[in-house]
Amino acid sequence: MKIGLLGFGVVGSGVYDIIANGTALELRNIEVKRIISLVVTPGFEHLITKNIDDIVNDDEIELVVEAMGGLHPAYEFVMACINAGKHVVSSNKHLVSNYFTQLNEAAEKNNVQFRYTPSAGGGIPWLSTLKRARRSDEIEQIWGIVNGTTNYILDSMVKDDTDFSVALKEAQRLGYAEADPSADIDGLDTQRKCIISANLAFDVVIDEKDVPAFGIRNITHSDVSYFEKNGWVCKLFANAGRNQDDSVYAYVVPVLLDKFEIEAGVASNYNCITYVGKYVGRSSYIGQGAGKLPTGNSVVQDILDTIFDDASLKREYKKSAVNNAMVAHRYYIKTDSATPELSEIIEKDEGDGRYITKPVSIECIQKTAEGLFEKCPQTFIAEIK
Amino acid sequence: MKIGLLGFGVVGSGVYDIIANGTALELRNIEVKRIISLVVTPGFEHLITKNIDDIVNDDEIELVVEAMGGLHPAYEFVMACINAGKHVVSSNKHLVSNYFTQLNEAAEKNNVQFRYTPSAGGGIPWLSTLKRARRSDEIEQIWGIVNGTTNYILDSMVKDDTDFSVALKEAQRLGYAEADPSADIDGLDTQRKCIISANLAFDVVIDEKDVPAFGIRNITHSDVSYFEKNGWVCKLFANAGRNQDDSVYAYVVPVLLDKFEIEAGVASNYNCITYVGKYVGRSSYIGQGAGKLPTGNSVVQDILDTIFDDASLKREYKKSAVNNAMVAHRYYIKTDSATPELSEIIEKDEGDGRYITKPVSIECIQKTAEGLFEKCPQTFIAEIK
Repeated sequence: MKIGLLGFGVVGSGVYDIIANGTALELRNIEVKRIISLVVTPGFEHLITKNIDDIVNDDEIELVVEAMGGLHPAYEFVMACINAGKHVVSSNKHLVSNYFTQLNEAAEKNNVQFRYTPSAGGGIPWLSTLKRARRSDEIEQIWGIVNGTTNYILDSMVKDDTDFSVALKEAQRLGYAEADPSADIDGLDTQRKCIISANLAFDVVIDEKDVPAFGIRNITHSDVSYFEKNGWVCKLFANAGRNQDDSVYAYVVPVLLDKFEIEAGVASNYNCITYVGKYVGRSSYIGQGAGKLPTGNSVVQDILDTIFDDASLKREYKKSAVNNAMVAHRYYIKTDSATPELSEIIEKDEGDGRYITKPVSIECIQKTAEGLFEKCPQTFIAEIK
Repeated sequence: MKIGLLGFGVVGSGVYDIIANGTALELRNIEVKRIISLVVTPGFEHLITKNIDDIVNDDEIELVVEAMGGLHPAYEFVMACINAGKHVVSSNKHLVSNYFTQLNEAAEKNNVQFRYTPSAGGGIPWLSTLKRARRSDEIEQIWGIVNGTTNYILDSMVKDDTDFSVALKEAQRLGYAEADPSADIDGLDTQRKCIISANLAFDVVIDEKDVPAFGIRNITHSDVSYFEKNGWVCKLFANAGRNQDDSVYAYVVPVLLDKFEIEAGVASNYNCITYVGKYVGRSSYIGQGAGKLPTGNSVVQDILDTIFDDASLKREYKKSAVNNAMVAHRYYIKTDSATPELSEIIEKDEGDGRYITKPVSIECIQKTAEGLFEKCPQTFIAEIK
């Protein structure tokens, strides 16, 4: 099978390397024929083009890998490829979480496959496993660490006893965080992966604007010291599940875990994602959530699934509201501000602007947070598991 | 598709329940037509028979689930079904690890599928994931906790501060351990799962007699206290991998892990299995390693893979010797005996018959152990990770 690559950055070049150099039998008949890239990497002049038509109009290219990132022109390019009858594999969580319905519908209409395992979990076969799991099981909940950058920062703040800004700089030096780290530290990357996972697990399509995301931008050294004193470890979690009335909840929040919990031991830039099935109970997956070869390998796995066609029955994904009113937890809030909403839910005043709340819903904490962030942008909020 | 069940115990009845009551779309066209069982469960009189011919000669039955356990007559029954042109899914690690070549060859000859995901990992989609992983990646090592009984006992000895015999009795009471617990506590169950996993990961067929298995029968409360003082947690591990010369190592041993390692936090009867791939790095899977519905769900997943045929290219499994001379670790040895072989490898005498060895190969520790067990059957050995 001849394939085209859209984008030749970290993931795209990883896909190329695995296809070109991998020794597995299954890789023998796959060949990268064309690459769309604005930069011409030396040695790849014969493959690289800036013109998407060189792929769209090439009937020999049966499958296209989109690893450009961003919404535009990724969306237009992918749609053009699907409409030209080509299968697409995408590693772009931003694209998949925003255009889930459009992309799936276009693929169905054109009788091609649209796969996106690499868009959440990186090197972990998370989405493909989830897709297989629901063939027999009922998925009840999903949760976990799906962003390596924030996990590296949170882990480093504990192990190297540093402050947030120092850990962030080190993550940037190591290539784990981008120059503009907002999407990671504000929880948007986690939010997108949460949405894609929830869509697949619960046959829904949920909107970014319905999924609250609390990040770790405002966590400080003194928070971490306080957590350690209490036997807690802080991790950034994606959370989603079915409520008892069959509606779906979905949100992103730092959580405070007992130090003996599995996720508490997940170090460095690793991810750890869990689903709870009616039959299998808890099923957790740990591995590299990003990186050239891990994510490249997930792309190649999706290519192989397209070739060997692990077809299961078509699902209908229903556009779905999010209902965050039914899940209750205690929260840790650190803030210089005071609001009537806050006073109402405080269970324990720990001093120094630290509070532990009564068990409240994520909807309630979201409302409280809005008031607090307005008066004190340095407010930090974490859920106590 | 109409299927037959061989065996109607824990796993067989779990398979029946999921097929009969599951709500997933994919389950709709699967029906259990016949069950082989020596006991007639009330309500199932119309399905149960003692005569294997009622399944072998029924052309409507396209797939047979073997969940009888043991080698005989399971082997003869399964071979009769394969030779009659029926697909087979087995949850029986004893059978699969002993007749790996015969079963795969018979299936190929008869152009049917032989699947065995439930035979290692229980409810964790471990073997199916491993099989998918090696389509693109090179598996370098596998390790982990694959026996829930021993993990329950080891966890309980720490958390409930009890001795081995008390923890074993509680495991038996909860149904986690059998009346005769030897296969679990002597590491034989782990050994079989180790072999099946290694065969699949490395395209080999290895023999039980080549895979040393150290169990946990002789661990005492005082060992556990000593480990805790050193910040260690003891877990029973299956280990296998490729040596640098392309030979394969494989062995079962209790390991002493730093308490912050992921496996150290795996509690109760859970399993945690890991592979290291050239491209994805470490990839770990945590879940229920046994039980009616978790293992039943794995059987159903294999049935669905048979129906939807996730065919990848056929592999040749090469009969392979085991080479345990190339992996070196320090070992903890507690014994009342003393032998020249032991003296030679001691690095530290911790008193009370406790020794820490120099880094030595598993082959060396196996030779040393033979001498020690002969003089002192209560000897306990664990690898220091």
